[in-house]
Amino acid sequence: MVFYVVGLGLSDEYDITLKGLEAVKSCERIYLEAYTSILMVDKERLEKLYGHEVILADRDMVESDSDTILKDADKVNVAFLVVGDPFGATTHTDLVLRARSQNIEVKTIHNASVMNAIGCCGLQLYNYGQTVSIVFFTETWRPDSFYPKIKANRDIDLHTLCLLDIKVKEQTIENLIKGNKIFEPPRYMTINQCVEQLLEVEEKRGENVYNKNTIGVGLARVGCEDQQIVAGTFEELLTYDFGKPLHSFVIPGKMHFLEADVLKEYAINKETFEKYADISQH
Amino acid sequence: MVFYVVGLGLSDEYDITLKGLEAVKSCERIYLEAYTSILMVDKERLEKLYGHEVILADRDMVESDSDTILKDADKVNVAFLVVGDPFGATTHTDLVLRARSQNIEVKTIHNASVMNAIGCCGLQLYNYGQTVSIVFFTETWRPDSFYPKIKANRDIDLHTLCLLDIKVKEQTIENLIKGNKIFEPPRYMTINQCVEQLLEVEEKRGENVYNKNTIGVGLARVGCEDQQIVAGTFEELLTYDFGKPLHSFVIPGKMHFLEADVLKEYAINKETFEKYADISQH
Repeated sequence: MVFYVVGLGLSDEYDITLKGLEAVKSCERIYLEAYTSILMVDKERLEKLYGHEVILADRDMVESDSDTILKDADKVNVAFLVVGDPFGATTHTDLVLRARSQNIEVKTIHNASVMNAIGCCGLQLYNYGQTVSIVFFTETWRPDSFYPKIKANRDIDLHTLCLLDIKVKEQTIENLIKGNKIFEPPRYMTINQCVEQLLEVEEKRGENVYNKNTIGVGLARVGCEDQQIVAGTFEELLTYDFGKPLHSFVIPGKMHFLEADVLKEYAINKETFEKYADISQH
Repeated sequence: MVFYVVGLGLSDEYDITLKGLEAVKSCERIYLEAYTSILMVDKERLEKLYGHEVILADRDMVESDSDTILKDADKVNVAFLVVGDPFGATTHTDLVLRARSQNIEVKTIHNASVMNAIGCCGLQLYNYGQTVSIVFFTETWRPDSFYPKIKANRDIDLHTLCLLDIKVKEQTIENLIKGNKIFEPPRYMTINQCVEQLLEVEEKRGENVYNKNTIGVGLARVGCEDQQIVAGTFEELLTYDFGKPLHSFVIPGKMHFLEADVLKEYAINKETFEKYADISQH
């Protein structure tokens, strides 16, 4: 039988492919990976569409209890649902390797993820460099490994996609120590917070990678009905209200003039866009 | 009414999303973009699923006759189908801009494309640099602009996705001059041809970007039932038979050891893989 790893796409239950739905409907057990990304709908809506219970798989389960997920997958079909595309996170690769080592047949059903849907802002996907993750700063932990990566991209005129942090099922240190299974409400980094952290690190490291006049692109709820794409200077984006999660952020490198034409349509202020955008004429 | 730009995904008619199918079924006219990529099935299979005629849109039509495609899209729904995700090619962005300038509402329905599905080989998407295109060399035209781009990626340890050329509806110079609407059979670059061209350019430019012992990854028919992923040295891949199109090629940069673990599963020869792979231990 088959262990299906099925991408759900970006927004709601109807973003699954026909192939994906058929696979899911053939399964005895259906797990939903619910910590590296989130769908915009509750699992009850998935259950209604599938006509079958959906089990939430948190990080603990996927990383330490994969045997439960893979149990009997040589006798019955099992589905593991992933928001976006199945290969967005390393964890899933690990699960696939475990399945194969137990001689379970694995089939992947691809879907859109932010890594390709980001093309919607008009910057061409082949002009992106490495992707960076921006994690929530705390009082004592302010990791800035994204900074040299953004610099490396910009040094060769490439765009940078910034993936913004998601905190799901986090515990306070107190609850963690006491072993209380009490979880904090989920937190999703906003574009405002991202820009704030980026500017803080530029201030600290001072290598002139970007500044408050650099053009950025905020994208909220990509692939949803109420998707928003807004281009502006970092300073303009620092206070722009993008509404509900999920947010992503792009720092354009040198833009081809056709890319700039599209992006300008999304500018908060066309004048500042034209003043600060780095545009190549050929 | 709505101009829908719908991604079809990678393989056959069942890779469309539920949302995409519903949109397509609401349309009076359905166009299929058939020159920047191809589906593995004939349009008749799409027509059967949609219960509606599908019109093939070639480059001429999309680039010079967009008014025909957009005609009456303010009064009836029109669908423009794209293999992969809608934003894989610049041309579609142009069509979207034209629609907007005519006050036609545009909705995009995302899907998987090779740009994110390539994650299936185990190399993490966020470790890729810029994507390069490898076009068929001719006697007189042997463009090698990919070479400095691959170098730039490898200099900062990033992977490179190579998109291989597709020639659809090409005319011989004779037929072009005579105005004969006779088209050559479609041609799809193989991984073997890609590696051959890469090595020719290294030979010519000699900047030591890669050589015949460099590890590469060939991927054929990503997302299809008979998908193939094979890792090996350029020399090994020069003669490996990957079968039918479409082919893609990846040149890994420095690999994280977890990435290498996955990729090794796909190696032609595990010994040469271990000998030549550039693997980081942290």
